Amino acid sequence: MNDQSKSHLRHVYFLSNRTAITAETLGHSLLAQFPDTSFTSVTIPFVDSEAKAEKIVERIALSQQQTGLKPIVISTMADEKISAIIQRSEALIIDPFEKFLPDLESLLHAHSIHESGQSHRISNPSLYESRIAAIDFSMVHDDGSTTKQYDKADIIVIGVSRSGKTPTCLYLALQFGLKAANYPITEEDMESEQLPQTIRPFRKKLFGLTTNPERLAHIREERRPNSRYAKLEQCKFEIRAVEQMYQQYQIPYINTATMSIEEIATKVVQVSGLHRLNRPDISSLGAGLNPQ
Amino acid sequence: MNDQSKSHLRHVYFLSNRTAITAETLGHSLLAQFPDTSFTSVTIPFVDSEAKAEKIVERIALSQQQTGLKPIVISTMADEKISAIIQRSEALIIDPFEKFLPDLESLLHAHSIHESGQSHRISNPSLYESRIAAIDFSMVHDDGSTTKQYDKADIIVIGVSRSGKTPTCLYLALQFGLKAANYPITEEDMESEQLPQTIRPFRKKLFGLTTNPERLAHIREERRPNSRYAKLEQCKFEIRAVEQMYQQYQIPYINTATMSIEEIATKVVQVSGLHRLNRPDISSLGAGLNPQ
Repeated sequence: MNDQSKSHLRHVYFLSNRTAITAETLGHSLLAQFPDTSFTSVTIPFVDSEAKAEKIVERIALSQQQTGLKPIVISTMADEKISAIIQRSEALIIDPFEKFLPDLESLLHAHSIHESGQSHRISNPSLYESRIAAIDFSMVHDDGSTTKQYDKADIIVIGVSRSGKTPTCLYLALQFGLKAANYPITEEDMESEQLPQTIRPFRKKLFGLTTNPERLAHIREERRPNSRYAKLEQCKFEIRAVEQMYQQYQIPYINTATMSIEEIATKVVQVSGLHRLNRPDISSLGAGLNPQ
Repeated sequence: MNDQSKSHLRHVYFLSNRTAITAETLGHSLLAQFPDTSFTSVTIPFVDSEAKAEKIVERIALSQQQTGLKPIVISTMADEKISAIIQRSEALIIDPFEKFLPDLESLLHAHSIHESGQSHRISNPSLYESRIAAIDFSMVHDDGSTTKQYDKADIIVIGVSRSGKTPTCLYLALQFGLKAANYPITEEDMESEQLPQTIRPFRKKLFGLTTNPERLAHIREERRPNSRYAKLEQCKFEIRAVEQMYQQYQIPYINTATMSIEEIATKVVQVSGLHRLNRPDISSLGAGLNPQ
């Protein structure tokens, strides 16, 4: 999109004194409720001084002049002085701290610190380390490359080539702190109609992915054009075979064809009853509350 | 933490008809403002029927009875009927859709669809595919294992062993859709005081990580106890050497010692002026607005 066409779109600013991940995540959820409106956005993290905030307010005013459209600002500023500067802007300000902290303060009979939260890494180094350990584990145990430490895995994701195993496991490790191995089901396994010997002792940790043959063929075609591997017939055969295998061995599985990586990972955790990694200040009630 | 002690903590529920990632992200940011209060939480994704919502409301009421503390509910329900059921709960309800959508509707002269947003994978398959391509790229180009496609990299992260290269690159790929390679700086490189031959042609894509010798020694000690590799003297030498190298070749770098993975990745993107992946409904204003 060139600058010309961008000038007709409404500008959205995701601002924060930290990473702006909360502002972006919330903003995307809200704006997705207006699918017929196009936006153009910029994320500005680490707005940690009044001088930076002043410059941003000027920039927002300029963008309103240029577009003739009131910009939208989604801002999570812990520092009240910086927040007050942003609030001065003429834009529509969406500020969850301003809206929700007062109610929380009265419920908890406590003042919010109004400070940029400490990095988890400082407040709870072991949480950081366990997350790194999960990532290391998942990297080493990608695509069946080694199976030595399967006894230490939280979950072993299985499926045919290109069914989404690797991204799912990386997300499980990075976002949820889970040691997630993945193991490919090959044609040989399918022909024998047996669960591979290597993973059979870990049946309770197995989780299957499947997809639609058409999607699989499309994705494989991008990877190896005109190959037998990417042929629709081949994909149909493989998917039929793994699904039979999942059913025969009572392995829980989901069809990932229309799901994002976040949705696949969330579903895997939900179905398998695993715990997501929690923030240091929050312990977990456990999966027993799951309403399914 | 056992069930006994949990019963004295205030219960927090993260609810959504989708993944509940927005509810969790927002909730963690808000609760982090009360560092002296302990919470126990449960995340319930895919609350997509009125029956499920009714059951959750009952469960919340029960938890209030058991703890004697009003629970906190952070809920992002697109469906209004389901949302209304949750609102009936006696808990403190934090609902960003209810709070912010009316203002957005009047600004945009549009009704929000009040529907569970489509998965990105459906609304924009190429976005899904480019994200998968970034993950594939980053996996293949981890730890200097191959350097063939460095011309296609968005960024090449360098640093000594255990300075955070791999998690940073995976986050850049998974969350920001960037093709992020990483390359280790070895003792041999340090002794020669030269940037490795392999990465020299890509100097403009290089980004350095450094850390504190004490932290590095601690992390390495966990990995290889009592090794020369984990000795503080060795870590001091390596860090001094890479930092000199970064300065000599004018490679931007950051010290990751106190940063979370999210913070490192956000900082790398900001400093290097790269673009984060955007949602399909949002284009990007670009990094020119960066206030640094």
